[in-house]
Amino acid sequence: MPIEIPDVVIDRLPLYYRLLSRLDSEGRSVVSSQELGEELGVTPAQIRKDLSYFGRFGKQGRGYSVPRLLDELKAILGLDGRWKVVVIGIGRLGRAIASYPGFEGQGFDIIALYDASSGLVGTEIEGQRVKDVATLEADLKKTAVDIGIVAVPGEHAQDVVDTLVDAGVHAILNYTPNRVQTPPNVEVRHINPVLFLQSMTYHLKQRRGG
Amino acid sequence: MPIEIPDVVIDRLPLYYRLLSRLDSEGRSVVSSQELGEELGVTPAQIRKDLSYFGRFGKQGRGYSVPRLLDELKAILGLDGRWKVVVIGIGRLGRAIASYPGFEGQGFDIIALYDASSGLVGTEIEGQRVKDVATLEADLKKTAVDIGIVAVPGEHAQDVVDTLVDAGVHAILNYTPNRVQTPPNVEVRHINPVLFLQSMTYHLKQRRGG
Repeated sequence: MPIEIPDVVIDRLPLYYRLLSRLDSEGRSVVSSQELGEELGVTPAQIRKDLSYFGRFGKQGRGYSVPRLLDELKAILGLDGRWKVVVIGIGRLGRAIASYPGFEGQGFDIIALYDASSGLVGTEIEGQRVKDVATLEADLKKTAVDIGIVAVPGEHAQDVVDTLVDAGVHAILNYTPNRVQTPPNVEVRHINPVLFLQSMTYHLKQRRGG
Repeated sequence: MPIEIPDVVIDRLPLYYRLLSRLDSEGRSVVSSQELGEELGVTPAQIRKDLSYFGRFGKQGRGYSVPRLLDELKAILGLDGRWKVVVIGIGRLGRAIASYPGFEGQGFDIIALYDASSGLVGTEIEGQRVKDVATLEADLKKTAVDIGIVAVPGEHAQDVVDTLVDAGVHAILNYTPNRVQTPPNVEVRHINPVLFLQSMTYHLKQRRGG
């Protein structure tokens, strides 16, 4: 498998995976790049190019085998394994994240919730006792964790991320408004609604007539 | 201004904007593509290419003028205007979104909150009375809205989005786990933590030696 796959392609693969899961559950065995493109809002040429990074799945004029492509994507994305996840910051947002449907079914096991508030530590949320964030560092030494989801107040984001990274966590999903610094070998995704809105106003402004 | 700017470039502009805002507030007048690249984790060549879509801001070897680039980005992204936003679904997630810092300062006015639950309708959240989602359609006829943020249970997502789109809302930020269908002239961003995690497991798997 080639190593240098563009990040924009990697970021689209979960969408392919989800669409193919749906088609598979509907009993479909074959799908065309045309149909995939229509469903995902990209051109069929882009679909063929994206999937070509991972070898030749499709037969000219025959479309892609749904179960085969699904299996391949599952393996490529690492969704045939299980991943240990911790959530730090169990305010409204953290609680909403912890109760989000679909983590477990997709191989993500939320193994611990952390907070700094004495009012929350020790309470039970989503069937888990909330742990004191002060124990995070020691806990990570005992149990290796793959992914940290950070939903603390922005001013604590960097501290929490540093603790995670120092303990060998290589993937961070940052829900705080603050951007965090990490070494180049750590994957970070920032979920900030303001940035998503700003990426849409460009198009709204075009519509308003510049 | 050229119209056909790739979406991946548009999606990066808010990051440039935020970084330049910080540099500007620190009193910096000039910045190099090298420094922008280091801060944002992209190559200087990519920075120069991205910004070249919007004309020539930088002087060879002199770097970019921070205030000038900031003003241009503000205008390009439509952040010199104000945008009306409604949030539909005021459960934990919706409440967390409604209380997210930074909307107002960036030109986004949350003008109304909606929910279907009789226990929530009429209560006050973030200084606003929660309205009954049953009045959404009529309200949108009276007051034009630019952006809808949808945080309802997944099974209601498409209905709410249809109501918004039918009333002329052209930008949707979808926090539900369900993907929604919209006409091509509507901008949609999906914020689904599972998809973000899946885009990182590819890299984690490479690391595991998969």
